[in-house]
Amino acid sequence: MKLPIRHVTAPAGFRAAAGTCGIKPSGAPDLALIVSDVPARCAAVFTQNAVVGAPVIVGRKHTARGPMRAIICNSGIANVATGQRGINDALAMCGTVAKNIECKPTEVLPCSTGVIGQRLPIEKITAGIDRLTEALGRNKRADADGAQAILTTDTRPKAARRSVNIGSTRITLGGIAKGSGMIAPNMATMLAFVTTDADIAAPLLRQALKAAVNADASFNRLSVDSDTSTSDTVAVLANGMAGHRPIRSSGADPRKFTEALTELCRDLAYQIIADGEGIEHVIRVRVSGARSQPDALRVARSVADSPLVKTAVHGLDPNWGRLAMAIGKSGAPVKPDRLTLRIGRTTVFRRGAPRPFNASAVRKTLKRFEVPIDIDLGSGKGSCEFLGCDLTRQYITINADYHT
Amino acid sequence: MKLPIRHVTAPAGFRAAAGTCGIKPSGAPDLALIVSDVPARCAAVFTQNAVVGAPVIVGRKHTARGPMRAIICNSGIANVATGQRGINDALAMCGTVAKNIECKPTEVLPCSTGVIGQRLPIEKITAGIDRLTEALGRNKRADADGAQAILTTDTRPKAARRSVNIGSTRITLGGIAKGSGMIAPNMATMLAFVTTDADIAAPLLRQALKAAVNADASFNRLSVDSDTSTSDTVAVLANGMAGHRPIRSSGADPRKFTEALTELCRDLAYQIIADGEGIEHVIRVRVSGARSQPDALRVARSVADSPLVKTAVHGLDPNWGRLAMAIGKSGAPVKPDRLTLRIGRTTVFRRGAPRPFNASAVRKTLKRFEVPIDIDLGSGKGSCEFLGCDLTRQYITINADYHT
Repeated sequence: MKLPIRHVTAPAGFRAAAGTCGIKPSGAPDLALIVSDVPARCAAVFTQNAVVGAPVIVGRKHTARGPMRAIICNSGIANVATGQRGINDALAMCGTVAKNIECKPTEVLPCSTGVIGQRLPIEKITAGIDRLTEALGRNKRADADGAQAILTTDTRPKAARRSVNIGSTRITLGGIAKGSGMIAPNMATMLAFVTTDADIAAPLLRQALKAAVNADASFNRLSVDSDTSTSDTVAVLANGMAGHRPIRSSGADPRKFTEALTELCRDLAYQIIADGEGIEHVIRVRVSGARSQPDALRVARSVADSPLVKTAVHGLDPNWGRLAMAIGKSGAPVKPDRLTLRIGRTTVFRRGAPRPFNASAVRKTLKRFEVPIDIDLGSGKGSCEFLGCDLTRQYITINADYHT
Repeated sequence: MKLPIRHVTAPAGFRAAAGTCGIKPSGAPDLALIVSDVPARCAAVFTQNAVVGAPVIVGRKHTARGPMRAIICNSGIANVATGQRGINDALAMCGTVAKNIECKPTEVLPCSTGVIGQRLPIEKITAGIDRLTEALGRNKRADADGAQAILTTDTRPKAARRSVNIGSTRITLGGIAKGSGMIAPNMATMLAFVTTDADIAAPLLRQALKAAVNADASFNRLSVDSDTSTSDTVAVLANGMAGHRPIRSSGADPRKFTEALTELCRDLAYQIIADGEGIEHVIRVRVSGARSQPDALRVARSVADSPLVKTAVHGLDPNWGRLAMAIGKSGAPVKPDRLTLRIGRTTVFRRGAPRPFNASAVRKTLKRFEVPIDIDLGSGKGSCEFLGCDLTRQYITINADYHT
């Protein structure tokens, strides 16, 4: 995959560097640093898992305090279930960055992804941070290297960029992400870092991020395998260096910014699901006619996570009975006689009754990389768009044949 | 597997017959009839899925009315998503049995399991019912044939029997069951039919069944793949023909009866999970120290249903990080620093910290058919025992390589 040359450094006033500090036995890149030249407003969302890594504990505190200057991220070891020493290691990463770029340690967001239950080789990492600081802004491949350095079992780097006019000034948003399902050797982590030169107050930025991650087919609307990592982090830094009129809560500006951020998040989210472990198909589940938005989400998630639905798509089987089962078990109120099901453009079930359909046309749809499944519950205005994927032998191989 | 010669006909006053009426293309047995010579008190529980088969709709009404005389069950076609005509077919099954054994149609419980969205070949079935009625009580293999006739992709029949003294009289409980995960061609169904010659009032019988299906490691405490069938049914018929003093709500009798019924249900439940689609291991998840029983169940179910945990067990990998992840995502309140994890007898994680352990000893545990996982949340007295299984390539093959 050819990456755009610049993404997280495309917005004004951001620099990045990445390299290998020696965490991964393979010698692959494992450390990335993103720095804003001036303090940036920050919004971040973290995993909902009750068991979280040390970087999440530290990151929650730091991002709640005020403007941020940098994100430091290693891959290979997740720094989860490592107790107070793990917290100290995460703080040491922040402290080293802070010393080097002359900011407070609390202005740095630490992230780690990889093996659970092991300590970070902190001397290697701090030495690596020193080298990356030297290289900041000097390497033209810094963005591509950064997208590479945060990966674990992903098969390809993930990056995206968007621009939008605020007044007559063009502002830019850039992002990198990682995530591939349950990442060997221990578990999946979804990380996404977004930079922008927009001038936007922190409360508005938080609103925009919340809307963007919860939008249809965005980060909170995808599932490779229903398992939730202990390290998930999505963070956006906005340093205001585009020099436009500040985005205020009134007018069209917040909407325009939120739309651009949402598009960027959707782009990265799709790159994540499309690189899900062992997958051969993306399943796009669209639910409409639910009594409420939460009901629509419940139904979409139940269908996207059903092993029965996932294996049917994998087997190119237009098995609408499995869809009906997964919808029915979702916990949302469902009236079978109002239910309509479509696979691609073909209606296979309408208002409670099976419809004769052209099986070969449906099988053609099922052979595509992306399989659209449309569910109309016929009971209200709640809707949702959710991304899932099929379940394959390769997924079992990736996750069963590894030994810790 | 050698079946006990009598199970559902072991209690006094029950007869059974089974055979082939021509629903399955394979010509395998597909119709079973269980009859009580006198009206029997009945308790039944049905699937929680919002989409249910016609037999479940009819069965709920019939079992709520009063005593029952018979259960009629076919395999091969589930009679789900078939509209009013499906209801009529289920009623026709009841009507044919009623005419033959001289009872009301509402005294018959109909059950069907198999393909969704197809109509039953009702003439074949009613002709089959006539033949089975003739054969009632004449065939010594009726019990074994009945256990066989309700199967779909199960690899073996499932049956069990228990006895207990009420006063000085021995009462008997017998049961047959089916279920194997997501059963080809469409979905799993768990069916269990229990007969007993106990004399017990319907409210007490319902209490006993509720306790039995919700007991540790019983029907409501197992999951092959987290998908819920549209046809699940567990029914118990108690005809009182043992001739003992009736079981009343006071004294030790209800407890003794409930214990025997619970043991029987656990026995059948274990036979179901042990025959789960493609499985190589049963996972027995024991949760203790939860703040409440519902929290314990939430944690146990999250662990047993986690693809990450299931593939780790399949890969013989003592990967406690995946256990911590699945516990944390359960939604129950979890304090990592109070959490202790054991695989077999080996403690791998104690109160928030990884413990050095003998990996080869744990791998020896993981190589056994049944893998015990013990989770102590250290926060209360809630506990739960739940049965799951590993996730294998064979499961994918069974569920993906079938084309409707």
